[in-house]
Amino acid sequence: MKKRIVTIGGGTGSFTILSGLKQYDDLSISAIVSMADDGGSTGRLRDELGVLPPGDVRQCLVALSQESQAVRDLFNYRFEKGELKGHVAGNIFLSALEKKSGSFSDGLEIAMKIINIKGKVIPVTNDSVDLQMKLKDGTHLKGEDEVNHNHAIQKTGLKSIFLKPKAKLDPKAEQVIQRAHVVVIGPGNHYCSIVTNLLVRGMGRALRNSKAKIVYITNLVNKKGHTDGFTLDDYVDSINGFIGDERVDYVIYNSQKPSELLEKKYKQRGEEIVRFDRSERKKRNYTVITSHLLGKAMQYGKADKIANIRSLIRHDSAKLAKLIRYISEADEYKRLIKKIV
Amino acid sequence: MKKRIVTIGGGTGSFTILSGLKQYDDLSISAIVSMADDGGSTGRLRDELGVLPPGDVRQCLVALSQESQAVRDLFNYRFEKGELKGHVAGNIFLSALEKKSGSFSDGLEIAMKIINIKGKVIPVTNDSVDLQMKLKDGTHLKGEDEVNHNHAIQKTGLKSIFLKPKAKLDPKAEQVIQRAHVVVIGPGNHYCSIVTNLLVRGMGRALRNSKAKIVYITNLVNKKGHTDGFTLDDYVDSINGFIGDERVDYVIYNSQKPSELLEKKYKQRGEEIVRFDRSERKKRNYTVITSHLLGKAMQYGKADKIANIRSLIRHDSAKLAKLIRYISEADEYKRLIKKIV
Repeated sequence: MKKRIVTIGGGTGSFTILSGLKQYDDLSISAIVSMADDGGSTGRLRDELGVLPPGDVRQCLVALSQESQAVRDLFNYRFEKGELKGHVAGNIFLSALEKKSGSFSDGLEIAMKIINIKGKVIPVTNDSVDLQMKLKDGTHLKGEDEVNHNHAIQKTGLKSIFLKPKAKLDPKAEQVIQRAHVVVIGPGNHYCSIVTNLLVRGMGRALRNSKAKIVYITNLVNKKGHTDGFTLDDYVDSINGFIGDERVDYVIYNSQKPSELLEKKYKQRGEEIVRFDRSERKKRNYTVITSHLLGKAMQYGKADKIANIRSLIRHDSAKLAKLIRYISEADEYKRLIKKIV
Repeated sequence: MKKRIVTIGGGTGSFTILSGLKQYDDLSISAIVSMADDGGSTGRLRDELGVLPPGDVRQCLVALSQESQAVRDLFNYRFEKGELKGHVAGNIFLSALEKKSGSFSDGLEIAMKIINIKGKVIPVTNDSVDLQMKLKDGTHLKGEDEVNHNHAIQKTGLKSIFLKPKAKLDPKAEQVIQRAHVVVIGPGNHYCSIVTNLLVRGMGRALRNSKAKIVYITNLVNKKGHTDGFTLDDYVDSINGFIGDERVDYVIYNSQKPSELLEKKYKQRGEEIVRFDRSERKKRNYTVITSHLLGKAMQYGKADKIANIRSLIRHDSAKLAKLIRYISEADEYKRLIKKIV
């Protein structure tokens, strides 16, 4: 009877949605995680040890862990000084497991047991890849970190985005997508956390062939230089484009306004709330569910500057999860209920 | 996060709804069970051993048992010859536990562990009572079995129905009603399985004070001589009358027609499908959910004549459970979802 939910995303966005989904005993959860990160602690480990990027996987593990908060905090602990400054304990732990067990996926199996997760975390690919992007002026961005920090993508114009070398979809990821009742894409950094998954060879086909409802969770704000001016429909078009079909069934959109202060702060940074205008498009092949979805802003440690810059407002994970669960059953309810009088 | 569901009913109807609810891991189930049965195997045990009636409780235990089908079949096994003919193994077992442990509720605690049930079964009262009924022509029916087999209640006119001696609500039953998200009343024999619960002192108050959504599941057919001509609204009026307030929030109604053959068989026995006419009442204080809810007719052993007569068509337990679950969350979904576009 358990509904099988698959999430596709990166670290922070997946953390949010998985934290909410974990609360439901009647969901079977698989988190498919982007493997293109090469910045920060993760980037240093990749460079120095030749390991696969542990950062996004680590965040998903923590989200799904059923261990105490203390264990989860330890796994997320970011060193604040010395030569380990900026490194995250869980990333180092995952890299050590990979080195010792011989492969990232074997190491991950052990990690999932140790921190006792509900469901499973699956790297989108086991190939070591870089995210690359070519812009219309000839600029060639190599690596997710470079893409992430380029603020002129939208202005210059995106020519192509790809993984190098080409990556193959993890067979376990393919299997859970085939068997899913619902696949959740997002929220997260559009090019660096979401599209990186869709670029993996076999992902588009898996999504096109799956009978799952595909749900896209719209980001709260547009990323400066990346998705300026994007509306809900623009995001869905982009996602459908990478899937290769109009495959998105549901879109979840936050219609709650943040405080004036927060909105001002965002504007100062050149970021704007993602817009959704119902009348903008005559016909949509997807159902848009709007809801008040703002959660509390998260607290970060001092060393966590990147995260701190990334986001001030957050989705409420419990509300997101409840909507996903609703979607997983909406069709059955519709079939079952003939009339409500 | 678990939704707390309480069912109120007798044996067969509760068996149906509990079998369906059991399939959901995210529900916490308490079954409150009528204790007025004095017919068949149960009546003989009451008479001969002075025990409380085990039959309805036994059916709920089997419905919620997580043991193998073999164990559950054993518990429901009805002897077909010898001096035990007509007795049900589980009834004897429950009576033995009551005798040995000193009280029905202590015996029940042990039984719940042995057959490993999900949730709990709570007798509506621990007092030994008889269902009694006075008709307008002076007839005085003593005991549930006598009421059950009288086919002139509706024609003669019901003057009063009561338990003798007055019974007190089990404190555990009161507690689960107070804490419930949803209380499900029915389906079942109206006077003999449903109303018997509502007659217990304290039940009306508990239901009036609870914040739970109260759901009434309408029977599929009217019982000859008891509820001839009753419509959905008549049943709800009756239930609300015994509760002492217009307390029913939702009514579940089967709008699927049985086969012509079955309908004919019912008609021959003087039983008719319960009617629901949307236009019959201008304003209802309850929401009616109509659905196609017919399940397969159950198979009975040869000795099971009573059950065989009782019912040819059945509610689909999985569908009933799904609707209950829907109701348990409908308000949250309504609050959460601002618009669906």
